[in-house]
Amino acid sequence: MVEFTHIEEGHVRMVDVTGKPDVSRSATAEGKIYLSSETLAAIRDGTGLKGNVLATAEVAAILAVKETSAIIPMCHPLPIGGVSVGFIETDEYINVTVTVKTYGKTGIEMEALTGVSVALLTIWDMVKSAEKDEGGQYPTTRIEGIRVLSKEKGTA
Amino acid sequence: MVEFTHIEEGHVRMVDVTGKPDVSRSATAEGKIYLSSETLAAIRDGTGLKGNVLATAEVAAILAVKETSAIIPMCHPLPIGGVSVGFIETDEYINVTVTVKTYGKTGIEMEALTGVSVALLTIWDMVKSAEKDEGGQYPTTRIEGIRVLSKEKGTA
Amino acid sequence: MVEFTHIEEGHVRMVDVTGKPDVSRSATAEGKIYLSSETLAAIRDGTGLKGNVLATAEVAAILAVKETSAIIPMCHPLPIGGVSVGFIETDEYINVTVTVKTYGKTGIEMEALTGVSVALLTIWDMVKSAEKDEGGQYPTTRIEGIRVLSKEKGTA
Amino acid sequence: MVEFTHIEEGHVRMVDVTGKPDVSRSATAEGKIYLSSETLAAIRDGTGLKGNVLATAEVAAILAVKETSAIIPMCHPLPIGGVSVGFIETDEYINVTVTVKTYGKTGIEMEALTGVSVALLTIWDMVKSAEKDEGGQYPTTRIEGIRVLSKEKGTA
Amino acid sequence: MVEFTHIEEGHVRMVDVTGKPDVSRSATAEGKIYLSSETLAAIRDGTGLKGNVLATAEVAAILAVKETSAIIPMCHPLPIGGVSVGFIETDEYINVTVTVKTYGKTGIEMEALTGVSVALLTIWDMVKSAEKDEGGQYPTTRIEGIRVLSKEKGTA
Amino acid sequence: MVEFTHIEEGHVRMVDVTGKPDVSRSATAEGKIYLSSETLAAIRDGTGLKGNVLATAEVAAILAVKETSAIIPMCHPLPIGGVSVGFIETDEYINVTVTVKTYGKTGIEMEALTGVSVALLTIWDMVKSAEKDEGGQYPTTRIEGIRVLSKEKGTA
Repeated sequence: MVEFTHIEEGHVRMVDVTGKPDVSRSATAEGKIYLSSETLAAIRDGTGLKGNVLATAEVAAILAVKETSAIIPMCHPLPIGGVSVGFIETDEYINVTVTVKTYGKTGIEMEALTGVSVALLTIWDMVKSAEKDEGGQYPTTRIEGIRVLSKEKGTA
Repeated sequence: MVEFTHIEEGHVRMVDVTGKPDVSRSATAEGKIYLSSETLAAIRDGTGLKGNVLATAEVAAILAVKETSAIIPMCHPLPIGGVSVGFIETDEYINVTVTVKTYGKTGIEMEALTGVSVALLTIWDMVKSAEKDEGGQYPTTRIEGIRVLSKEKGTA
Repeated sequence: MVEFTHIEEGHVRMVDVTGKPDVSRSATAEGKIYLSSETLAAIRDGTGLKGNVLATAEVAAILAVKETSAIIPMCHPLPIGGVSVGFIETDEYINVTVTVKTYGKTGIEMEALTGVSVALLTIWDMVKSAEKDEGGQYPTTRIEGIRVLSKEKGTA
Repeated sequence: MVEFTHIEEGHVRMVDVTGKPDVSRSATAEGKIYLSSETLAAIRDGTGLKGNVLATAEVAAILAVKETSAIIPMCHPLPIGGVSVGFIETDEYINVTVTVKTYGKTGIEMEALTGVSVALLTIWDMVKSAEKDEGGQYPTTRIEGIRVLSKEKGTA
Repeated sequence: MVEFTHIEEGHVRMVDVTGKPDVSRSATAEGKIYLSSETLAAIRDGTGLKGNVLATAEVAAILAVKETSAIIPMCHPLPIGGVSVGFIETDEYINVTVTVKTYGKTGIEMEALTGVSVALLTIWDMVKSAEKDEGGQYPTTRIEGIRVLSKEKGTA
Repeated sequence: MVEFTHIEEGHVRMVDVTGKPDVSRSATAEGKIYLSSETLAAIRDGTGLKGNVLATAEVAAILAVKETSAIIPMCHPLPIGGVSVGFIETDEYINVTVTVKTYGKTGIEMEALTGVSVALLTIWDMVKSAEKDEGGQYPTTRIEGIRVLSKEKGTA
């Protein structure tokens, strides 16, 4: 029988975790943004361009990780202890990986997923003038494969 | 030659749009979250459950649309005039569509994309106790196909 | 037949107001916080005390007015043009009045009501060490009578 | 002699609680919103309507509980461990109850009171098109009786 | 006779600007952060280092410009139309310049000053491990000369 | 060799502090705002004026201290335990001092510096109608000398 801990007797609630021990926890999530080959080539070749697109995405992701419990309604606020962001560029897409660490009472995968999503949205925003066609539409741009790569938990 | 309006001479900037006219604009974006068949069946069969999962996602999406310029660094703040959220449930995934309307100086697709992303992340958070396996991992859950369906612009 | 514009076909939405004209609008709301006579006397007699309690409540109210659309999910963001806060002290309670002005597409009473509520909660917080009994409970403190006093709208 | 811990020598301050032990704490607050009998009947009879009005108020209340220390100036940030929201509908009003739990250094009643206030304001916003008279005024709508029902504290 | 428009009859208020016309406006502010010569040399010589320190400060400044009315209590929210950030490095300090543009009802210098302040604080945070002495103190680091360089206003 | 812990292999990151012990920590920062002698005299002589300018700055500073990790990208969120703000008025400037206390895993000087900066910006905003010359410029107003006065750390 599947269980939905955020819903009880027809009402949403934020589950009580006050009795759970603080333990070290980490989670890593990833996702991809598909871009036109012209945009990807321009990012690959232009040092300043690349640095600025990815640095802006990194900063946005780290800030978003810290705001997760204000964005996702039932998320518990957790003391974010560390965040790192990585990028892999291919001929078709940029892959973003976010790892988040905490020492707290509940898992931190929603923070990693929120960081990945905001990094990908920020890349989209940074390159949108290059990705739009003449009608202002986006024939190529899309975000795919947002998922949790791993979750770890220490002992109390 | 591709153009990156948010970057000039090696620095990021928020492009100056003060000289552009206010016109009515709308954008629609969509995305999917793949879930286990047990979770999708429980949502389909449980009225209270379904109402709560989707209502929470709707509210989170609408709030996120309004916060887009605080989340995506180079986004211009726009006077959000209307937001609607739609869901389609299939045997494999829930599809989310968000339409945003404004009367302003620049396009509103980043707001629609942010609304879709936050709706999908909120669904994930609401069903995560049902989606995790015994090791606390997510074998099925993933977000795919976030894209702009259409963008429209009135005349000044 | 009563109408709920924020709900359509079983879904919440933020109503589209992009087609409405910008007009000057104002709204005034009020509310009361009942306090122990000792607390009210201390506020009445202590200039520094009174200044600090009411100034903190004023500042909190003005900031909250500006954050209303981030706090109330279906509220439209409006360009806040002016806010003023007034207090009346009696032997039983402090009455708070908040007037908000805008030049926008929809009414501004939720902003005035949010300002009043936050002013009253801030007064509570500022005097809570004086209001609590030995068991840490609040035998007297309560908030009453939050309502809209008037709403006005100019012509386009 | 009444004591105002947030004020010292004519200045506001956020009281230092760093030396206090972390203990489990909970607080429950309540409040009422009076509505017209037509609005209350429509909410009672319309499943979708009721679900949406109350679900939106629940989500707004839970988010507001987490933002309390950003809204109320002298409030300490506390690690919110759990939040639940309840509603009782009568012929005259809807009563909202919010219970908040933490494991921290100071009481959590301001969070419960903020959650109640925001739930009530959100209900107002959701039904405002039905509550306004022809002149755009609110002859019936008002918020009453916001108070702390109970506060509890564990041992260190 | 000096005038304080934010204070009237002993109360703070947010001045009513709803009757003022929308005009194009811009403001430029600057400020300096003094750093140790070792830190400045490391930033000058390390391309990756310099890019990351300054890009993070730029992004933080642009986000802060948009949040000014949530940080400075009596500031009116203004539709930010464009923001650019510049840096000059010398042997003693880094100078930051922020220019903000709007099309609105009141001046935008507080936004430019807030952007400069947050850029300087972010640089401090990014280099703090290099600036601290053995006792964890900052013998050199300080922020100086935050001022408005120019303010301009178009005609209605 | 200087060390920049927020940057690793050409990428920004939020340093992992989850393994560090919680200890009591405090930091005090200060800064000055130079104002015209007319403005300083008006503040000195007008009780209501002075109370309102400084109380608004105090409240803004305390709120900003709590928002530091949302404003400065790589800052860790810390459980703020206490904040106090002090002012010294001279014939040339107002000096602001902010002391922040926490019980956490990393230093709290960025919070004290952010509090000082926001207090100074708020004073500027409160007196700006008195400081501007006929051309709308600020011949006198400037912020100087923002620095950390002391940092202390207890033992685990």
